[in-house]
Amino acid sequence: MKGLPSLENLSLSFSKLPGVGAKTAERMAYAVLRMEREDREEFAKSIAEVGEKISKCPTCGLYEENGECPSCDDETRERSLLCVVSEDRDARSIEKAGGYHGLYHVLGGLISPSKGLLPEGLSIDSLVNRVKAGGFEEVILALSPTLEGETTSLYISKLLASTGVKVTRLGYGLPMGASLDYADGLTIEKAFEGRRKI
Amino acid sequence: MKGLPSLENLSLSFSKLPGVGAKTAERMAYAVLRMEREDREEFAKSIAEVGEKISKCPTCGLYEENGECPSCDDETRERSLLCVVSEDRDARSIEKAGGYHGLYHVLGGLISPSKGLLPEGLSIDSLVNRVKAGGFEEVILALSPTLEGETTSLYISKLLASTGVKVTRLGYGLPMGASLDYADGLTIEKAFEGRRKI
Repeated sequence: MKGLPSLENLSLSFSKLPGVGAKTAERMAYAVLRMEREDREEFAKSIAEVGEKISKCPTCGLYEENGECPSCDDETRERSLLCVVSEDRDARSIEKAGGYHGLYHVLGGLISPSKGLLPEGLSIDSLVNRVKAGGFEEVILALSPTLEGETTSLYISKLLASTGVKVTRLGYGLPMGASLDYADGLTIEKAFEGRRKI
Repeated sequence: MKGLPSLENLSLSFSKLPGVGAKTAERMAYAVLRMEREDREEFAKSIAEVGEKISKCPTCGLYEENGECPSCDDETRERSLLCVVSEDRDARSIEKAGGYHGLYHVLGGLISPSKGLLPEGLSIDSLVNRVKAGGFEEVILALSPTLEGETTSLYISKLLASTGVKVTRLGYGLPMGASLDYADGLTIEKAFEGRRKI
């Protein structure tokens, strides 16, 4: 039977998303085919726009829309606190939980030699430079309590030891082995309250 | 913190896909943001193209690309056999399995009053008209062995009874390669009913 090349192309694009296998990608492509015309056009437009409108803040690495960093450019935030996260979406989970109003620094991942992620591949140099430039009283390492997260926290805390700035990590209210991304707001809030000096 | 409207729009589009919740949709939107520019453009293009290039065959309901039905317009197919399926992708699964070379008829769903799917909402009238128009020796109902599938098969077989055309359904029993140990009671019962002389 003759195939549907357009549908196969779309399946291929879906299968590039995390956690989407060939069968799921195919079901998604069929779902797009069944969508209302407007929904489909909106979907295509959103994908294009995400790339055009969103960029990374050159200072902290958070995603920004229309060139204004949601953290660095917000004058109401507490500028003596710096919260280090692995990914942009971790910072947004923290914001949703509320309670923290300092600045952020996005590493872009965690140290994981097995995945080829070495310290040089992360925004650790720029973090150290930001802290050395002065102004911060405390650096909070808000990384997932996994092997990679712990390794990264330890690595960073050693680098920052000479600066004299207080370095803390989130308290263990977070269940070990879980991803920060999936933690509920209250758990994140409790973890902020229970942070400890490394 | 200021949000990312483009990313939220994209999350919303993803969450309209089957089996995709808010959190998964968000992860997918972030994954699109991290994609290479070309991959993202290809993705947006594929979504738009699927709607422009693919249409339904007015006779059998299969999806066709560039206006040529993969079944009805294929002169090499056996025209005395008609296989009735719920969705286009079921026909493609059957094609991948091989062995069947007749024509198809896509119902567009299964009768399910609880989901608001009544016989009038499916392509059953057009099926009956196709069969009444003559030429078919056998109609094979290839529907899932679920309550909805069985109901639909029964409904169609009654409508076709007067035409004198042989109406069959797929055989039920143990799936190939499966362990008897893991089969459910109903499947084992059906397998006993459908036992064959070796």
